[in-house]
Amino acid sequence: MKVGVSRALQLAAVLVIASASNVLARAVDNNTYDRQREALVAQDYSNLIGSSVVLTSEEELANQILVALKQQELDDALDSSNYPPARNFLVSKPDIERSQVFSFIRSMPKGAVLHGHDTGLTSINFVVQNLTYWDGLYICYLDYGPIFKFSASPPSEGACPDAWSLVSTERAAASSPSDFDAALYKNLTMGVDNPLEAYPDVDAAWVRFNQYFASMDGILSYRAAFEAYHTQTLTEMRDDGVTYLEFRGVLPLLHELDGTVLTAQQTIAVYKNISDIFVSDNPEFFGARFIYGPPRGVSVEQVFAYVDLVKALKTEFPEYIAGFDLVGQEDPGPPLKDFIEPLLTLQDSDPAIDVFYHAAETDWYGEDADENLFDALLLNATRIGHGYGILKHPALMQRARDTATPIEICPVSNQVLRLVEDLRNHPGVALAASGFPMVVSSDDPAPWAALPLSHDFYEAFMALGGRHADLRFLKQLAINSINFSSLPAIQKASLLQLWTEQWSNFITSVIIKYQSIHTNLIPED
Amino acid sequence: MKVGVSRALQLAAVLVIASASNVLARAVDNNTYDRQREALVAQDYSNLIGSSVVLTSEEELANQILVALKQQELDDALDSSNYPPARNFLVSKPDIERSQVFSFIRSMPKGAVLHGHDTGLTSINFVVQNLTYWDGLYICYLDYGPIFKFSASPPSEGACPDAWSLVSTERAAASSPSDFDAALYKNLTMGVDNPLEAYPDVDAAWVRFNQYFASMDGILSYRAAFEAYHTQTLTEMRDDGVTYLEFRGVLPLLHELDGTVLTAQQTIAVYKNISDIFVSDNPEFFGARFIYGPPRGVSVEQVFAYVDLVKALKTEFPEYIAGFDLVGQEDPGPPLKDFIEPLLTLQDSDPAIDVFYHAAETDWYGEDADENLFDALLLNATRIGHGYGILKHPALMQRARDTATPIEICPVSNQVLRLVEDLRNHPGVALAASGFPMVVSSDDPAPWAALPLSHDFYEAFMALGGRHADLRFLKQLAINSINFSSLPAIQKASLLQLWTEQWSNFITSVIIKYQSIHTNLIPED
Repeated sequence: MKVGVSRALQLAAVLVIASASNVLARAVDNNTYDRQREALVAQDYSNLIGSSVVLTSEEELANQILVALKQQELDDALDSSNYPPARNFLVSKPDIERSQVFSFIRSMPKGAVLHGHDTGLTSINFVVQNLTYWDGLYICYLDYGPIFKFSASPPSEGACPDAWSLVSTERAAASSPSDFDAALYKNLTMGVDNPLEAYPDVDAAWVRFNQYFASMDGILSYRAAFEAYHTQTLTEMRDDGVTYLEFRGVLPLLHELDGTVLTAQQTIAVYKNISDIFVSDNPEFFGARFIYGPPRGVSVEQVFAYVDLVKALKTEFPEYIAGFDLVGQEDPGPPLKDFIEPLLTLQDSDPAIDVFYHAAETDWYGEDADENLFDALLLNATRIGHGYGILKHPALMQRARDTATPIEICPVSNQVLRLVEDLRNHPGVALAASGFPMVVSSDDPAPWAALPLSHDFYEAFMALGGRHADLRFLKQLAINSINFSSLPAIQKASLLQLWTEQWSNFITSVIIKYQSIHTNLIPED
Repeated sequence: MKVGVSRALQLAAVLVIASASNVLARAVDNNTYDRQREALVAQDYSNLIGSSVVLTSEEELANQILVALKQQELDDALDSSNYPPARNFLVSKPDIERSQVFSFIRSMPKGAVLHGHDTGLTSINFVVQNLTYWDGLYICYLDYGPIFKFSASPPSEGACPDAWSLVSTERAAASSPSDFDAALYKNLTMGVDNPLEAYPDVDAAWVRFNQYFASMDGILSYRAAFEAYHTQTLTEMRDDGVTYLEFRGVLPLLHELDGTVLTAQQTIAVYKNISDIFVSDNPEFFGARFIYGPPRGVSVEQVFAYVDLVKALKTEFPEYIAGFDLVGQEDPGPPLKDFIEPLLTLQDSDPAIDVFYHAAETDWYGEDADENLFDALLLNATRIGHGYGILKHPALMQRARDTATPIEICPVSNQVLRLVEDLRNHPGVALAASGFPMVVSSDDPAPWAALPLSHDFYEAFMALGGRHADLRFLKQLAINSINFSSLPAIQKASLLQLWTEQWSNFITSVIIKYQSIHTNLIPED
């Protein structure tokens, strides 16, 4: 018997007709099904971050604008497979900056940056165009790039095997100052055209990342340069819609141009003074607090010294010192569990010292770096730095929820430092979907030329939130950054009030801006 | 005041001594802490797949061997950043095959393959070296590669714009038969040296993936070629330690060399006959069942025809037909929700028809493809194909757990088809960690030259299971593949018995093999 495809389709057609008598029953089932589906969809997305936020009617209008912009960009991406969050930030940045969603987020008051490292927060452009023009800055080229030293007189050899020379001399000898500055910028930034080749894995990315800090350290250990840099940090934060900052620092002792070295206490006094002056000049900025986060790659004895130092600092600067952490790439270790003895002494310290441990900034599962999460939670961390691996630990997720311990997600950092390529695979997607306590932050925006918070908020909104995240998601992230700050309750309330005013003004401005420019974006309804 | 770093360290040393009086209290805290940590670690990993498995003393010994091999490979990888699961399978395969863990897994009885597509299961080598040497095979080169047709006489133009020629003629005209075969292999495989460039995203990978199937279709629609191919599928399964197969097929109607086209029923009879003969010849293989999975990119009317056909087939072949699915890349759609009317008619079908929908084989969150999960679960899927996105849907995860609905994870497929680059970022890691119902399968091992199950089990064991997954994890995955098969309870028990005997023999052989070769691997204890 010879039966062609057309015959099979004819047969199928017959069968369709034969089953037509069931159409009514099917229609009933269909309605029931649709109701069940709607209920399940609603139940599922009711866990998404922001879903408990109730918007005002003005916010609803702003939300309609935002959702229209977002859906357009998602629809375009579905067609083009050219979705910025799916590609390394070092190459996707120009595309992000063409996004209208990004433009919306950029002008939005985003609350606080709670995870950032002091010398990675200010644009490299400022360093090159401002600080490297100061008198007394010496430079020495090592294999990987330049190191610097501010000094009133030519520095002794130190870390420089050849000879130190003045930046001003080098710049004068260059083909042009702008050529020199461009080369300098290139030597400092992690930016490359081919990040996947330049940084083939996490370790390779960290090598370059650490070189950035090594270059910065020689500039920023000069007291006056740090003052200018940190003032610029706060300025760029303010300009990017950030109202408050909790930043980590390894606390290198600052020095004067004549070589005089400040104590740790004097160094902190410098930090705090910058913040106080900036807040006084900029009442729209709430302030900054410092988390002492020295390098983890040390002995137990050294960690005893760290914790004793942070106790002393907390006693002297009870409001300014937010707490303690240990920093540096976690994979090579040592893990937190090696330092339990000194770290436990922070538990019953007086005044109390909050801890903010980095934990599980790693792709590994079940290795020491991943299991830093056990210690971060058992040591009652106020927040967890990154916590990238927490999704793999059901008991720890439950404990973090029960104790309202947020993770500090830094999407761009995780991508540039090669933990994840496509941010739609970031664990933060599932965590956001389940309403896990989190804040979004930027870690070290300077080496990858990100803004203090806008790019990370964009990535979080588009990739972590998926299609359904809307203004409520962004508002909740901003509120989270205030609620999960380490501020005392009264100050937290003041910060929330300040941010709420900024938010309200923003909503009004959005409606004015988009109503006049893009009336077609606002649904009739 | 000038205070150098050495002074700061002296200060720290003083502080360490000052706090020495707290050492006893700390030691007590430390012990308490260690106990708390151990308890939390145990609680956390008690959710990992396999953790409820109790090993016999023989299995314990085999486990010690396996764990020693695994830890060595993990330790090596931690040093070298050269971890196979972190890199695309198309380039990591040779490294996997040097792994002793892989060798262990390869010889292990792994249970069933529950997610595989009929024309993607047999090695391309077999096709090239065997089927393309058959008489009557015509070839036509299109831009992307060859298409074929078995025919007693030269085929009419059809899909070939130029002219069909006999493969035998082309091979004779080539510089050598082996050159011709090598070129043919290259034209069929997805294997490339630079997969990230060749397949820059999911869509690009799917274009090439679909071309593979288009090439195969012309060979395998010939009845006798399909018989040989499918027999070889079952042979390769058996040789790779697979005991049972549930495979999907789009059910192209087979034809004879003279052009006679079989009906769907006749085609299924051919399939079933191959399986019956193979099982009769190979009592160590339990059998195969067929899931009718036609292409999703069709009209509602066509899906009515599909479901009517599967009902007719289920009536005629009640044991051989396992159920229904729809296949093809989900992102371009259409989604399952477009076909609710016809799909609902499967619910009260007599005989009952199980469904095994592909759902959320996508990186997108909240888009239609992702939300196929709602329909797969509401339509009471027996298993979910891939379910890559389920981690983003807390209510659906709960529903899948409550109804013991497993996802079919295919790690290598997801990596080659560019859903995820580093398998340590696969959602299966978090799902395995929380004991989510799952089976591991291979999807289409042929186009990427994987074995029927061993490579996927290796990736699951190393990447999804992390450092702590051991023999219990692998045993549970094998048992899951039997328990989550669609077999009736009695047959499931028979399959389990058959597999248990194989498993027991394997454990004995492992101990003999590794005790004689690698005594140093077995801890003294």
